[in-house]
Amino acid sequence: MRLLFLGDMVGRAGRNVVVERLPGLVERWRLDFVVVNGENAAGGFGITEEIVQQTLDAGADVITTGNHAFDQKEALVFAARQDRFLRPVNYPPGTPGRGAFLYPARNGARVLVVNAMGRVFMDQLDDPFAAIDRELAACPLGEQADAVLIDFHAEATSEKQAFAAYVDGRATVVVGTHTHVPTSDHRILPGGTAYQSDAGMCGDYESVLGMEKDEPIRRFVTKIPSARFAPAMGPPTLCGLAVDVDERTGLAVMVAPVRLGGVLSESWPQAWEPA
Amino acid sequence: MRLLFLGDMVGRAGRNVVVERLPGLVERWRLDFVVVNGENAAGGFGITEEIVQQTLDAGADVITTGNHAFDQKEALVFAARQDRFLRPVNYPPGTPGRGAFLYPARNGARVLVVNAMGRVFMDQLDDPFAAIDRELAACPLGEQADAVLIDFHAEATSEKQAFAAYVDGRATVVVGTHTHVPTSDHRILPGGTAYQSDAGMCGDYESVLGMEKDEPIRRFVTKIPSARFAPAMGPPTLCGLAVDVDERTGLAVMVAPVRLGGVLSESWPQAWEPA
Amino acid sequence: MRLLFLGDMVGRAGRNVVVERLPGLVERWRLDFVVVNGENAAGGFGITEEIVQQTLDAGADVITTGNHAFDQKEALVFAARQDRFLRPVNYPPGTPGRGAFLYPARNGARVLVVNAMGRVFMDQLDDPFAAIDRELAACPLGEQADAVLIDFHAEATSEKQAFAAYVDGRATVVVGTHTHVPTSDHRILPGGTAYQSDAGMCGDYESVLGMEKDEPIRRFVTKIPSARFAPAMGPPTLCGLAVDVDERTGLAVMVAPVRLGGVLSESWPQAWEPA
Amino acid sequence: MRLLFLGDMVGRAGRNVVVERLPGLVERWRLDFVVVNGENAAGGFGITEEIVQQTLDAGADVITTGNHAFDQKEALVFAARQDRFLRPVNYPPGTPGRGAFLYPARNGARVLVVNAMGRVFMDQLDDPFAAIDRELAACPLGEQADAVLIDFHAEATSEKQAFAAYVDGRATVVVGTHTHVPTSDHRILPGGTAYQSDAGMCGDYESVLGMEKDEPIRRFVTKIPSARFAPAMGPPTLCGLAVDVDERTGLAVMVAPVRLGGVLSESWPQAWEPA
Ligand SMILES: [Fe+2]
Ligand SMILES: [Fe+2]
Ligand SMILES: [Fe+2]
Ligand SMILES: [Fe+2]
Ligand SMILES: [Fe+2]
Ligand SMILES: [Fe+2]
Ligand SMILES: [Fe+2]
Ligand SMILES: [Fe+2]
Repeated sequence: MRLLFLGDMVGRAGRNVVVERLPGLVERWRLDFVVVNGENAAGGFGITEEIVQQTLDAGADVITTGNHAFDQKEALVFAARQDRFLRPVNYPPGTPGRGAFLYPARNGARVLVVNAMGRVFMDQLDDPFAAIDRELAACPLGEQADAVLIDFHAEATSEKQAFAAYVDGRATVVVGTHTHVPTSDHRILPGGTAYQSDAGMCGDYESVLGMEKDEPIRRFVTKIPSARFAPAMGPPTLCGLAVDVDERTGLAVMVAPVRLGGVLSESWPQAWEPA
Repeated sequence: MRLLFLGDMVGRAGRNVVVERLPGLVERWRLDFVVVNGENAAGGFGITEEIVQQTLDAGADVITTGNHAFDQKEALVFAARQDRFLRPVNYPPGTPGRGAFLYPARNGARVLVVNAMGRVFMDQLDDPFAAIDRELAACPLGEQADAVLIDFHAEATSEKQAFAAYVDGRATVVVGTHTHVPTSDHRILPGGTAYQSDAGMCGDYESVLGMEKDEPIRRFVTKIPSARFAPAMGPPTLCGLAVDVDERTGLAVMVAPVRLGGVLSESWPQAWEPA
Repeated sequence: MRLLFLGDMVGRAGRNVVVERLPGLVERWRLDFVVVNGENAAGGFGITEEIVQQTLDAGADVITTGNHAFDQKEALVFAARQDRFLRPVNYPPGTPGRGAFLYPARNGARVLVVNAMGRVFMDQLDDPFAAIDRELAACPLGEQADAVLIDFHAEATSEKQAFAAYVDGRATVVVGTHTHVPTSDHRILPGGTAYQSDAGMCGDYESVLGMEKDEPIRRFVTKIPSARFAPAMGPPTLCGLAVDVDERTGLAVMVAPVRLGGVLSESWPQAWEPA
Repeated sequence: MRLLFLGDMVGRAGRNVVVERLPGLVERWRLDFVVVNGENAAGGFGITEEIVQQTLDAGADVITTGNHAFDQKEALVFAARQDRFLRPVNYPPGTPGRGAFLYPARNGARVLVVNAMGRVFMDQLDDPFAAIDRELAACPLGEQADAVLIDFHAEATSEKQAFAAYVDGRATVVVGTHTHVPTSDHRILPGGTAYQSDAGMCGDYESVLGMEKDEPIRRFVTKIPSARFAPAMGPPTLCGLAVDVDERTGLAVMVAPVRLGGVLSESWPQAWEPA
């Protein structure tokens, strides 16, 4: 069973590369399940329902988010009805929408997707370690769930590594998001969980976090905002993680970074290429 | 001209992999200049003068550091006399030691090495953007310096990317450290500066930042310290960045991640392998 | 019904002023209930069981704490058996001890004491707003509790003011701690809850947070630790808040800051002075 | 010589109480020099040139600011020509306007006013300790300056206390701003410098930091913004610090908190009241 996760789509460039590339990849790699983080899809800040739909149409099964989940106010409304849209599970009780859900994959498997958020250098949310325990207890891998994919949206590598080790053996894959830079520490942890500290973003890397460089640099230098942030529109990179799942155990048997297009060195799961 | 940078050596495992591997690499790859970040070399916290010497003996030309520079109190003393030891340049005036210096490479070139520290989610230091302007004005690439290597020790990818774009064309390479996780965004920026957001660490990745996992996980879960941190002692990975320099311009013509040994997928500069 | 709250006792100077002054005040002001924050009692870091006992012997009914609750490791043990010792209620489930409890006052009233901790610029704990809802639902003012005293240990005045407004009318008093500086915004909120953003500390104010000034200043200037922090031993001030309770409603009818001794201007509840 | 400092004016309520009360106080107390922090004057965010002028017309000699100095973009322009407007001195070189200046008082004395900003839990600015050394070296108390007033805009009481102790004896008064809550630790430090950790704000205290309570509370509870912040419009309090200066030494001989109107307990310098 083949899972693909794509990191934070940033602005139009990020959306374009997903819409243009994903349908072909679904077919070429015979993907069973695709998750895309969409927290920066709308001009860098949040996501609209229209973009949610476009992304699903392109082949995504689920959209995850993070600290920008509700930047577009309409998300407070559509979160309730769009059950393929997830916001971090450790937002306070009563937050619109859901943070974890069980979805059917193309191969008929049941995939639990959890979107959790770290707290180090981030918002003051409830404990993601306690939250993941609850979700995995309610829907354990190998019982109600045939695969478990966790998007852990966090800043600090310490929290990401600790979180992954904490759930190792209880999830198919823990993939980090939020830094918008892919890491090269992809591997299968001792317990069988695939891991990469950050998936990177889908967007233009000739940028600062996918946004045009001038204003971020100016803010670092002057400490005073002088313009709005705007998404960078250069050639985008599709970034994410490919995971092959042992259908017997639900654990990972292969993990490979995906980087296609744009200014980064390319990478993809060679084993998935058709002969 | 060939430069090698190695990320934060963590504890004995990190030291071992550097001491065992570096001499062979210097020879095999005919390295002209080697910089190693040593801020976590002594049990995870700082570095002793003895370790500085061992690392130089293994082939390093310069040791850079970061927020842990002075964790070992003896560094406040030896920083003054060990001119191959750098601490971040943007510490307050009066801080022992230096943050930038011009060194001779094996090929006779003069290499400016600058160790700067970011401020986002970090200590309250002076402005690294202003600091790098001063250092590069005092010793510009192509004039007093034949190559410029900057170790930018920082947490946030936004600050790292902005900093790199800010110096693009004025340095040979900007390489990030501090997160202890290698990124896969290595590339040559439009102005000719090689860049990777983080070099990763030299140490055991079956860990949290190179330290044994149990205590970090327990702290995330309980929010209360219950033991000291201890370096992880499993099979270590050597992590860093290889940069080939155009001797005419001092800019980069090739950049490749280095990951050797341990649990990460391996990578090295193929072009440097002897035929 | 008369309540006295005393802010963070810092080191020996703080303990001394409490032990010397509190017994006389209990008698002179005919106090019904006394709560003392003890998170810095043991050399500035945490509290020992012996100091808990001394403070109770001096007239305290309850000891509250904060982010330093478990700095003395023995607190992880005695927290379970010392039911007059509270640690913040929004520590993770499973934390030793308790964060809220119902105590009998000298006049026979039942006083709910809650110790909660803010999250802005503080540790990543569970939501104190949700926690206080739970505690007040389990033991509401005017029903199971005749008075409710909340020590809200927090840094940011925004969070303190928001928290107090949130519980206004549901508690007798919300008093802030942690900044070690008394504020002069004591008043009764519209709903009847007495409030002061910070009680201040019991200790020597010719200091930095009750600790000798030299090392803190040096750290701000050099950004490098050069010695341990030690409690300041000059003439201490007793700092806190006096609250008169309407026994019919459990709400506050009088609130007055207490500052006695040391270098601060003195203040006390004039109405409580014997004729 | 009599100095009055007023803390952060917040919105219309804050401006009103200053405009209505200040002219009478200047006369009644025969004030020689008045400084008002205006960083929140324009709807809570920054200050316009028109408000600067109104405040000067009401009797202020200087307007200081803080992290909100440039929230109103016109401040980037008028900062250069309005020499009675100060922004923090430790902004980067090149920032419009100035952070310290020597002004004539009504009695002919020369008053150095410095606006500095702390770094703990605040923006990443240059070192305020180094900055104040430079300003005081350029214009020392008792030589070029007959009095020195420092508005230290900072969050953490540790940094405020350390900063005040650091300049004790070299300034007439160090008064903190930014928390919007007055502290009651006003006193003359051993070296002769008057100090209060925070002056408090001029505005409606039935609020969160001078802003209407509903939205701040909602954000703490839901962690999601749902509306803009709006200044609270209830009865405002004028908050600040009164300092009497020894004209021989330039040091303080009397310091008293000022709290007039609104919901706080009132306070004023009794010695200044006309017989
Ligand atoms: Fe993102
Ligand atoms: Fe994010
Ligand atoms: Fe490090
Ligand atoms: Fe570091
Ligand atoms: Fe404390
Ligand atoms: Fe505290
Ligand atoms: Fe303010
Ligand atoms: Fe402020």
